[in-house]
Amino acid sequence: MDKWDQRKRPIRLERRFEFDSYESTRVFLDRLGEHCEAINRFPDISFGKTYVNITIRPVLDDEDLIDEDFQFASQIDEFTD
Amino acid sequence: MDKWDQRKRPIRLERRFEFDSYESTRVFLDRLGEHCEAINRFPDISFGKTYVNITIRPVLDDEDLIDEDFQFASQIDEFTD
Repeated sequence: MDKWDQRKRPIRLERRFEFDSYESTRVFLDRLGEHCEAINRFPDISFGKTYVNITIRPVLDDEDLIDEDFQFASQIDEFTD
Repeated sequence: MDKWDQRKRPIRLERRFEFDSYESTRVFLDRLGEHCEAINRFPDISFGKTYVNITIRPVLDDEDLIDEDFQFASQIDEFTD
């Protein structure tokens, strides 16, 4: 969670993940996709061969980040293991 | 192919695809991922619940776009069917 940057205008959490290979990137993206679908929450994701950038906006539109947002970020961190 | 924007600095092709649902977005991303892996070419991809933006840089580094680049874009267009 400490690797996420908390930014403003718009309020958001961002983190860049780097990988050794496309295969590792793909495994991460697949886990992430399944989780997002399961909880019906879809962050903005940018990726290339060996990186993934994720932007999480507050679950409550136009509000501050709340526990649920930070928990979502922590869950994503676990998909790199 | 005519829906791709050709841009400079850096030289690239860009297109935004929009979808009705996350499921359609995911199907497109899966097809795209398999193709990229098969030809070992990895564009920059940004996506959310119902959109995908793709940026294709020239296959020849620091050169103009060539036929192979435009063919790659056309192949991607077919994954929306």
